[in-house]
Amino acid sequence: MSGQIENSGAKAASQLLSPQNARDLFDSVDAFLFDCDGVIWKGDKLIDGVPQTLEMLRSKGKKLVFVTNNSTKSRRQYSEKFRSLGIAVSEDEIFSSSFAAAMYLKAIDFPREKKVYVIGEEGILEELELAGFTGLGGPEDGKKTVQMKPNCLFEYDKSVGAVVVGLDTYINYYKLQYGTLCIRENPGCLFIATNRDAVGHWTDSQEWPGAGCMVAAVCGSTEKEPIVVGKPSTFMMDFLLQKFHISTSKMCMVGDRLDTDILFGQNAGCRTLLVLSGVTTISTLQDPSNHIQPDHYTSKFFKKL
Amino acid sequence: MSGQIENSGAKAASQLLSPQNARDLFDSVDAFLFDCDGVIWKGDKLIDGVPQTLEMLRSKGKKLVFVTNNSTKSRRQYSEKFRSLGIAVSEDEIFSSSFAAAMYLKAIDFPREKKVYVIGEEGILEELELAGFTGLGGPEDGKKTVQMKPNCLFEYDKSVGAVVVGLDTYINYYKLQYGTLCIRENPGCLFIATNRDAVGHWTDSQEWPGAGCMVAAVCGSTEKEPIVVGKPSTFMMDFLLQKFHISTSKMCMVGDRLDTDILFGQNAGCRTLLVLSGVTTISTLQDPSNHIQPDHYTSKFFKKL
Repeated sequence: MSGQIENSGAKAASQLLSPQNARDLFDSVDAFLFDCDGVIWKGDKLIDGVPQTLEMLRSKGKKLVFVTNNSTKSRRQYSEKFRSLGIAVSEDEIFSSSFAAAMYLKAIDFPREKKVYVIGEEGILEELELAGFTGLGGPEDGKKTVQMKPNCLFEYDKSVGAVVVGLDTYINYYKLQYGTLCIRENPGCLFIATNRDAVGHWTDSQEWPGAGCMVAAVCGSTEKEPIVVGKPSTFMMDFLLQKFHISTSKMCMVGDRLDTDILFGQNAGCRTLLVLSGVTTISTLQDPSNHIQPDHYTSKFFKKL
Repeated sequence: MSGQIENSGAKAASQLLSPQNARDLFDSVDAFLFDCDGVIWKGDKLIDGVPQTLEMLRSKGKKLVFVTNNSTKSRRQYSEKFRSLGIAVSEDEIFSSSFAAAMYLKAIDFPREKKVYVIGEEGILEELELAGFTGLGGPEDGKKTVQMKPNCLFEYDKSVGAVVVGLDTYINYYKLQYGTLCIRENPGCLFIATNRDAVGHWTDSQEWPGAGCMVAAVCGSTEKEPIVVGKPSTFMMDFLLQKFHISTSKMCMVGDRLDTDILFGQNAGCRTLLVLSGVTTISTLQDPSNHIQPDHYTSKFFKKL
């Protein structure tokens, strides 16, 4: 495989990252956008070489941005997680799909008097609150059960104007009924998905169902399709570009998923680097049925250049 | 609207059932196939006119069959439910999707030494056991939670060769992870759906998420499509025809759902009657976007003819 960089486009085969083309990539990029699960960490374990790579990039003046579809944490909580792992990352450098959901509602001028029902975890509720919206559901509905008795009505708030669905490891029938009733019965109620990742590395040893599982469940009961705010939707990139004035051609998206990370980068016109530390294997990448080809792929970070 | 019966086909507009065309339908049909939820009952309440209609049909020598996509009960449990509501129906007259799942495994000679993981309720497990298969999961996994700690592996049975997904009002992340791992990791593991109904009348006052919700969740996490054994799949009809030697042109499918009941009847060449006592409204039936037209529709049963 050649070591030269070519602007390979979506269909050309990916190049293995070599010391030489890594150098070329490094020189041509001003900002590196990193996915987190399967790229920076798996569960609570850092992936080998990450701290050194991030430190090297910062020391060379590269802008670092962390773009994660995992909605269980807010930006503040992600910043704490980075700190607990010995890496200093500010909230401003983090773009999580929990934040994207709140920013989407802000962008469309979602009425402040309406409420937002959450099938998801703490991160979404915290970001909604920070953006001035009233969230319902989430963790506090995690232990609720349903009463299916004659004449017993399942009560839900008629002022819910949006249902946000993300990864929810406390998913239950109560929340599914609540969200379904709001979307089906409250006129104009929005159905917003943080993302549709099938699975993710929530622990270092295994993959687990992702937000795609909960989002599909709500599609199944409502027969509606959601507005997706996380990767590969361009919403997060548009927001990011408003903040950082860097041309997307000077950005490189680094991720472990073809259908979210790499597609997100390609949709925006960024360079793309697939890391094989997460959900994508080399055989998936090279399978003829795969039509998403990153510019480069690597099984390990180069700690020095 | 004309009172005459025409073999209207899928696209011709439905006729409102009148005393006259009800008489003609009655004379030309030997067996009536009834859906249950939204047709016979809503929750634990019989729908008005049902006992008298069933009694009248039996007294005239019509064969009655009950074909339900609701997998929460076994045939034995459905027979008990009918009895508790004052209607005598034998197990042989009941075709539930729980039974269909077990019969499907029998039909394909599913190996007896393999196990079946169930995301669903008691009915599926009981039918699997009656058919000689080993079921896992179901209600006993309803209170299990997941441990997402470093190095902690989610254990699952490598001998699971099929995952059956049906309506599960105790759905949780444990079951979703269990079923997902089996389908993704156990070579050749089947993904079987009892049905894909979006919602159903599990209580008289409201609709609730149906099996389509849980099935979609597993599609979302596995990125695979299931084998469907309930309506509108023809599997249940093929099985029913083996048992009752009646031509499908002499059968009438009576149901409340266009995309399951009516489609199921039409796929098999049966006459079809939509009742408006369940999930389908007259406006849904007559909406230009609806392409499934039953031969007849009615908002109430004719207790006498």
